[in-house]
Amino acid sequence: MELGIDSFAAVTVTSEERRAVESRQAINELLDRIELADKVGLDYFGVGEHHREEYLDSAQVVILAAAAARTQKIRLSSAVTVLSADDPVRVFQEYATLDLVSGGRAEIEVGRGSFIDAFPLFGYDLNDYNELFEEKLDLLLKIRENTRVTWEGQFRPALYDQPVYPRPLQKKIPIWIGVGGTPASFVRAGKLGLPLMVAVIGGETHRFRPLVDMYREAGVKAGHDLDSLKVGLHSLGYVARDSKQAIEDFYPGYARAFTRIGLERGWPPVTRSRFESQLGPRGAFLLGNPSEVAEKILRHSEALGGISRVTFQMDSAELSHEQLMEAIELMGTEVKPLLG
Amino acid sequence: MELGIDSFAAVTVTSEERRAVESRQAINELLDRIELADKVGLDYFGVGEHHREEYLDSAQVVILAAAAARTQKIRLSSAVTVLSADDPVRVFQEYATLDLVSGGRAEIEVGRGSFIDAFPLFGYDLNDYNELFEEKLDLLLKIRENTRVTWEGQFRPALYDQPVYPRPLQKKIPIWIGVGGTPASFVRAGKLGLPLMVAVIGGETHRFRPLVDMYREAGVKAGHDLDSLKVGLHSLGYVARDSKQAIEDFYPGYARAFTRIGLERGWPPVTRSRFESQLGPRGAFLLGNPSEVAEKILRHSEALGGISRVTFQMDSAELSHEQLMEAIELMGTEVKPLLG
Repeated sequence: MELGIDSFAAVTVTSEERRAVESRQAINELLDRIELADKVGLDYFGVGEHHREEYLDSAQVVILAAAAARTQKIRLSSAVTVLSADDPVRVFQEYATLDLVSGGRAEIEVGRGSFIDAFPLFGYDLNDYNELFEEKLDLLLKIRENTRVTWEGQFRPALYDQPVYPRPLQKKIPIWIGVGGTPASFVRAGKLGLPLMVAVIGGETHRFRPLVDMYREAGVKAGHDLDSLKVGLHSLGYVARDSKQAIEDFYPGYARAFTRIGLERGWPPVTRSRFESQLGPRGAFLLGNPSEVAEKILRHSEALGGISRVTFQMDSAELSHEQLMEAIELMGTEVKPLLG
Repeated sequence: MELGIDSFAAVTVTSEERRAVESRQAINELLDRIELADKVGLDYFGVGEHHREEYLDSAQVVILAAAAARTQKIRLSSAVTVLSADDPVRVFQEYATLDLVSGGRAEIEVGRGSFIDAFPLFGYDLNDYNELFEEKLDLLLKIRENTRVTWEGQFRPALYDQPVYPRPLQKKIPIWIGVGGTPASFVRAGKLGLPLMVAVIGGETHRFRPLVDMYREAGVKAGHDLDSLKVGLHSLGYVARDSKQAIEDFYPGYARAFTRIGLERGWPPVTRSRFESQLGPRGAFLLGNPSEVAEKILRHSEALGGISRVTFQMDSAELSHEQLMEAIELMGTEVKPLLG
């Protein structure tokens, strides 16, 4: 099983005067973490896309390209590209270039995005949320398939036998579909035969099994090989040498961050008891010492009918760079060998 | 005076089967050249933007970001960003991220582009060539000035108090205007008080003096400080230890490339005599041994009333990677010290 990390390039800006320096430091430290993840043998690093002050990842491919130059084997992906608000031609060009720069290590994970900031910024209507995604994914897949593209749609100018360069090093850049809990998204990914990255950021992971089954059934029904219908799991996670320490490191920042996001999204405030309920054997959090976390990953994998990749979101708990470096080291040296 | 290089990330693909491997090698070698340019003390490296088979630079910021991770001091720029066909919000986000990744070494050179491939690819009308550029430059400058932007235009959805992140490390990312021979472009750059990069790819460099004067006059009249009205010169160039060798290395590939481009643009085919006329003291080509080339740069600078940066286009003569590496070494160790 592949093990990796997703980051949003979080930054804490303490004052307008210090914004530039603090942003620079946050990016530097993120690049150090990606380099370490590669060194300790992790398989994957993904960077999100946001258009808000707390995250530096609005042009994530630029961060991934810098990381490519400092790493050897780790796969580098968007997680996710907010495709609905972007131009599939530009996205393909960027990741094809990343693929050349990284020696064939680029991946694209597309999603509809859980924040909505991209819509007003790029002039899209939230009412078109689903249609935008569907149409743009269709174009992205066409460009991956053919250098010269003829295509017409509703949300982007038509293409008449237009070539799209450069072409990547990999024959096909992997395009994953990032999904939350929307059943139609699972079915769409299955029909298209694209690998599926399931974000389970709370609750109990096994509850996603029916949705994952829908994905696999839709895929097989559409004629795709079951082996090609890969499933990945993305969850909040953090590893420390000591189980209790992991929880105490994680909880305060997690509570602050999710209470803040909850205000925007109408979630209830975080409480310690709700938090702890997700630490149990079936809970979503990948939090604890290395052997506990490895066991939990294997349990989740079984519950979902087998997963091929698990990625940790560690940026949502205001952990220090030093804590994250230590966690990455443990993931590579202790968790990964236990996953087989 | 700053000395640098511009590249289009040229690739020669010998067969469809070898495209991926040859593209990968071309990008690798380009990154090696940027690294060497930094090591030998060159000040600047720019990468163009094209949307055609011969060049791998459609998403040039991705190449620049990989280069940022491998270099220490050299400034990294687009040359040019075809702004007319792009979204200024995305462009700003990309170069602000490059600025963070590179520790404050990012620049943007915007231009209308000399190839027109971007227009059909991104759904723009060539009849709007000038209006597109003007409007998008206006928005790009607004975003550089303010984090929160309110803006309305004809070619891009309006912004109402939208924040654009990340912010760069430099207080202001330098935005150069790349111009050919259009007088209105010189005046526009002057009025805006933006540094000017003049592309002189043939003919006699001193003939651009009246246009450069128009730039400076427009700038001073608009209230900009004369010192801030910087002028750069971009020309075809190549340096070898021996003067005759430089010319023999350069000519055959140059003749092929410019005859090919001439077919698209209605130029006459290249002839040896026309080529040689541009080697003379007033001719545009920066071609010869290090002291000849340094002298010529200083002569051109004087002819244009003083320039602060000169950049060599070396990708248009099908020179080998080894020849380019040798030329970069000579530019850093022998040409640069002679420029003062």
